[in-house]
Amino acid sequence: MNLILLEPDEAKGDGQVRLTDARAAHIRSVLRATSGQSIRVGILDGPLGTGVVTMVTDEAVTLACAFEATVPAPPLVDLLLAVPRPKVLRRLWAQLAALGVARIVLTNAERVERNYFDTHLLEPAHYRPLLVEGLQQARDTRVPQVTVHRQFRVLVEDALDVLCPARVRIVAHPGDDAAPISRSVGTRPDDRVALAVGPEGGWNAFERDLLASRGFVPVGMGPRVLRSDTACVALLALVHDAVLSRQAARAHTAVSAGQAGSGIMP
Amino acid sequence: MNLILLEPDEAKGDGQVRLTDARAAHIRSVLRATSGQSIRVGILDGPLGTGVVTMVTDEAVTLACAFEATVPAPPLVDLLLAVPRPKVLRRLWAQLAALGVARIVLTNAERVERNYFDTHLLEPAHYRPLLVEGLQQARDTRVPQVTVHRQFRVLVEDALDVLCPARVRIVAHPGDDAAPISRSVGTRPDDRVALAVGPEGGWNAFERDLLASRGFVPVGMGPRVLRSDTACVALLALVHDAVLSRQAARAHTAVSAGQAGSGIMP
Repeated sequence: MNLILLEPDEAKGDGQVRLTDARAAHIRSVLRATSGQSIRVGILDGPLGTGVVTMVTDEAVTLACAFEATVPAPPLVDLLLAVPRPKVLRRLWAQLAALGVARIVLTNAERVERNYFDTHLLEPAHYRPLLVEGLQQARDTRVPQVTVHRQFRVLVEDALDVLCPARVRIVAHPGDDAAPISRSVGTRPDDRVALAVGPEGGWNAFERDLLASRGFVPVGMGPRVLRSDTACVALLALVHDAVLSRQAARAHTAVSAGQAGSGIMP
Repeated sequence: MNLILLEPDEAKGDGQVRLTDARAAHIRSVLRATSGQSIRVGILDGPLGTGVVTMVTDEAVTLACAFEATVPAPPLVDLLLAVPRPKVLRRLWAQLAALGVARIVLTNAERVERNYFDTHLLEPAHYRPLLVEGLQQARDTRVPQVTVHRQFRVLVEDALDVLCPARVRIVAHPGDDAAPISRSVGTRPDDRVALAVGPEGGWNAFERDLLASRGFVPVGMGPRVLRSDTACVALLALVHDAVLSRQAARAHTAVSAGQAGSGIMP
């Protein structure tokens, strides 16, 4: 936990917060915080801030919190993911939130086994704590929006443009021929990116064609075939890196323009 | 299993192989292979090849194998990793082998807890099957070389140059100031890359300085703090992508040079 996250109703107007659960135990036993010490706090889908410890007892930890004026922007990346095996899904939730996705669209596909939809890991009561765990790791407050879709075609034809209005759309495709991610996210720093990741056996031809018809361009990571959770983490890391590079390029251009300007008017 | 891997002594001179373990079960139940069907095979640290199924019974599967003349080159990436918690280490072995590392150098560090060294997961009998699982996933035959070091200083000062003679050396460092990986692996396509990944709480100042004195340059992935297994997968994905980009740039240069040449001598 690199950040203590609070539900919106836990942080009252005066900033006084009393914790009695695992967060209190973490502050006591891992951070070993004492009265007067400041720790990082945040409100779920709200601002980051600082909490000054005002009391530590065996039952509770109390904090006096002050929050920033602005709320962090959600990540620029959305994920369209064919529902993986429950064992893989369990491992993925916290990692997806930590890597940073604004939206997770879980979908059926031909090679998704029907019983994958039966798991309790698709219920908010089970996955939300895992998402929050990932946010506390990554120091973010923005909880990914999750939707689950049992009909791939209906999702892609009718719902996807509303859920993921990303201009840049890429679909992971193993093989040497697909373009690298770094060359597929465009150059506009603020463009959202939607990444589609298929089931363990890949999308079938119909699914690939339907995604292509909605603007999804194939991208790859070289010849090695990765397990779907490894692939998901690797792909999101590459997308985020490409997005950061776009932003760095803009910052660099802005600096260059500034220097040119100062040359004209010395 | 995208590849059936054989121990060197299982593949005799005539290429006849008889399998009775989990690989036979996989060929029977997952691949549903029948006589005459070809499947991908490989010899550990040896060549890839093709196995024609000659018999399938409840007890055994027999294959007639033919192997390529050359052995795949080991990956260009070595990993120096502070020993993680056993739970994390268990998850990492197969993923590291799948992503592709020639050598895994596990080391102590100040923030590695002493009891992390007590796990059976540091014994070859326990980790080798997990590495092989990762290779079977990624279709590679080269088993990462693993060594375990309890003294960081002795490792870095006396052994590292022999173990990892990589010219490009980078150390993961969370934070905005570190350079992106894509700009830190140089441009020479064949240069090996050594990546150092610290413990959950990071390297201490002494460790960072010692690594810097041996040529390790800090690299980062932006502001988000990741769990060490997520970070390891993400970092290796970025290093491999940068290495592939170097190779693609060479191929591009070679093509351009060829075109220029044909222009001169039409």
